[in-house]
Amino acid sequence: MLIQTLLLAAAIQAAAAPKPLTPNDIVAKAPAAAWRTIPADDLLIIELKAGGRIVVQLAPAFAPAHVANIRALARANWWDGAAVYRVQDNYVAQWGLGEAEKPFPKGVVAQPPAEYARRLRGLPVRPLGSADPYAPAAGYALGWPIAYSRRAGTANLTHCYGYVGVARGLAPDTGSGGELYAIIGHAPRQLDRNIAVVGRVVDGIERLSALPRGTGDLGFYKERKEDVPIARVRLASQMPPAERPSFQYMDTGSAAFGSYLRLRANRKDAFYQRPAGGVDLCNAPVPVRKTP
Amino acid sequence: MLIQTLLLAAAIQAAAAPKPLTPNDIVAKAPAAAWRTIPADDLLIIELKAGGRIVVQLAPAFAPAHVANIRALARANWWDGAAVYRVQDNYVAQWGLGEAEKPFPKGVVAQPPAEYARRLRGLPVRPLGSADPYAPAAGYALGWPIAYSRRAGTANLTHCYGYVGVARGLAPDTGSGGELYAIIGHAPRQLDRNIAVVGRVVDGIERLSALPRGTGDLGFYKERKEDVPIARVRLASQMPPAERPSFQYMDTGSAAFGSYLRLRANRKDAFYQRPAGGVDLCNAPVPVRKTP
Repeated sequence: MLIQTLLLAAAIQAAAAPKPLTPNDIVAKAPAAAWRTIPADDLLIIELKAGGRIVVQLAPAFAPAHVANIRALARANWWDGAAVYRVQDNYVAQWGLGEAEKPFPKGVVAQPPAEYARRLRGLPVRPLGSADPYAPAAGYALGWPIAYSRRAGTANLTHCYGYVGVARGLAPDTGSGGELYAIIGHAPRQLDRNIAVVGRVVDGIERLSALPRGTGDLGFYKERKEDVPIARVRLASQMPPAERPSFQYMDTGSAAFGSYLRLRANRKDAFYQRPAGGVDLCNAPVPVRKTP
Repeated sequence: MLIQTLLLAAAIQAAAAPKPLTPNDIVAKAPAAAWRTIPADDLLIIELKAGGRIVVQLAPAFAPAHVANIRALARANWWDGAAVYRVQDNYVAQWGLGEAEKPFPKGVVAQPPAEYARRLRGLPVRPLGSADPYAPAAGYALGWPIAYSRRAGTANLTHCYGYVGVARGLAPDTGSGGELYAIIGHAPRQLDRNIAVVGRVVDGIERLSALPRGTGDLGFYKERKEDVPIARVRLASQMPPAERPSFQYMDTGSAAFGSYLRLRANRKDAFYQRPAGGVDLCNAPVPVRKTP
């Protein structure tokens, strides 16, 4: 009888306890003040010929010269005739003009500086709170995931899922920004500080990640007819205001983001028996939503 | 003049220095003794109706009851009529009979024990040598990536790209093994120790990762006509010996694997300027090859 009573008491307590929140609950309930609208000049819209678009948020705070190039290329319609020409499983989808030779428009720097890391100073850092295998520390700043070193005084964007980098040849070439790739697999963070990361896909990553894999070396499509043609690449700021897509990212300095991050590291909702007590930087992505 | 001489000397030295090895070079040059052939009873072959197959290496050393179930289901042709019915971007592709009700064949345990971790004792561990955000330590044993705790005396398989787990409802249900999923994005390691990991895809992961994403909640296909039909699921040991596919994994205790791991953490070949000095467990996958 005692046992039944105890079990009953436990059942009542369980029923009365508030349901544990999920990270998604935090995102859904975050106040308007926790969101930052992405400027129209920071949104690059890639329209596929077959329909659908991929929207990239650019990161001028981390790679200003490369982002300036990308904006100049977009404004000059330089990507007319571009295509996705490489899709390597668990690695990258890459697009641009490929082998086609085309002069750069005015304002594009053919060899930008190596914007692989920036000064840590000036960045309001929220530490991840978990170990990072690739850097002395990891965290978030200005709405972006970063790896950083207080001793070196540097911070860099990281190659997480959906992040966009500038394809390049061998160093010291840093790439112009004309050929870009997005990560479509487990974060290949050995590329951090070896390549310029210029942004992240905020909408439509599945239009890249679900493409057929290339069967050539490094996932390049063997035949040009396999390429996935791109109809147009432009900034949201080039579109009529009423037609512009608009997205917001969660302020990584907000209380809501702090709660989200704690819950990503400690899932306690019904499905989970054992919270990990930690999380990998790329497994706690900065929430992004369409502007309501 | 001195400076020119020094520069010339440096140039000669650079030209004479052996080209730095890549992790792929190590894999290509590893001796036969560094490879272990996967037993035919540990290979599950999933043939898609549209053609092509996905080959899964089972992990009986980590989830024996679930693997026994999977073998019994395969031998009884239980998966006849199965399909891939869920593809969630940057997460999982899931297959099985879904909502279809079908009794289990003899020998299948409907509620296996929670094989979410095993005893560390008895495992010959090679430490990763880098921090793990999810566990006190990470490394490799018996050809598998593991997270482990010396204090708790436990080790678990990890949800890396291509790894296969047993779908389940809410705890204490552990899943029968009839519904399986493979990871097709960044490692969702919050699932570790909350779900039974039973193996990894050793061939054909792109037949899952490049599938159209489901537009229903959690990436489920909304309509049954969207499902990707599976023609047959069987063990290699059920096939005529001459027709069996055969794969080998690199012995994680071998010297070759040690070199591979060091280079995954410290890329020094021509493309890389800054070796990371560390690597994430899921970004140093155990090499697998077709048996030569």
